Amino acid sequence: MTTGGCLCGTVRYELTGEIHDFYHCHCSICRKCQGAVYLTYASVERSGFHLLAGEDSLATYRSSPALKRRFCRHCGCHLFAELGNEISLSVGTLDDGADPGGREGRERHIFWESRCGWYEPDDALEKVTEFGS
Amino acid sequence: MTTGGCLCGTVRYELTGEIHDFYHCHCSICRKCQGAVYLTYASVERSGFHLLAGEDSLATYRSSPALKRRFCRHCGCHLFAELGNEISLSVGTLDDGADPGGREGRERHIFWESRCGWYEPDDALEKVTEFGS
Repeated sequence: MTTGGCLCGTVRYELTGEIHDFYHCHCSICRKCQGAVYLTYASVERSGFHLLAGEDSLATYRSSPALKRRFCRHCGCHLFAELGNEISLSVGTLDDGADPGGREGRERHIFWESRCGWYEPDDALEKVTEFGS
Repeated sequence: MTTGGCLCGTVRYELTGEIHDFYHCHCSICRKCQGAVYLTYASVERSGFHLLAGEDSLATYRSSPALKRRFCRHCGCHLFAELGNEISLSVGTLDDGADPGGREGRERHIFWESRCGWYEPDDALEKVTEFGS
């Protein structure tokens, strides 16, 4: 069972679905949303993601009309974003730094052209413009 | 002038002080606090950090008795942490991905032993246990 939650423990979730996308995002919106140099997400269909606790403590910030970013109002942890039927999970919220799977053939750096200019994770992953096409 | 703020723009700050520490943190607390695989901070004395707007919108989460993590209650952005006279700035919140300076001779990966096991930024920076000593 793959579980995760926020730092204060109020919001808890379980992941049961297959990951269908996996990326490290360097866009300026993610950077200012969560404060890191880049953010890492795993995407899953809504039916594969289950809130176990703390739904009432989830605040919402819409960074665009369609995208709902959900964070714990107590500790400020951004757990996931909702876009239609898709959940983009902040992978740092998985318990014990777990690997959610689904990385093979999908993991890449997206919005690479928007990265901060002074630090680059020098790995062998593909670096693409926007989401890559 | 080095400025920054949260995603929704409610909280704004200016940085005038010299950066005296700079690190990418892989501890499990930072990971669950902000949702990224690792977080990047620049430390400055309190006198070198000035809130320009939005102080009333800053929520506080204490991940330990002495450490106050401050985030925008509207968009959930973790802007900085306070520890005594020190401000640890989430560098992703700087405008336009700016470099706050102070990296030379200080920039390193800390709490490397706590990193998630499935992804490593393969750069030439030093990797240390806890803060390094």
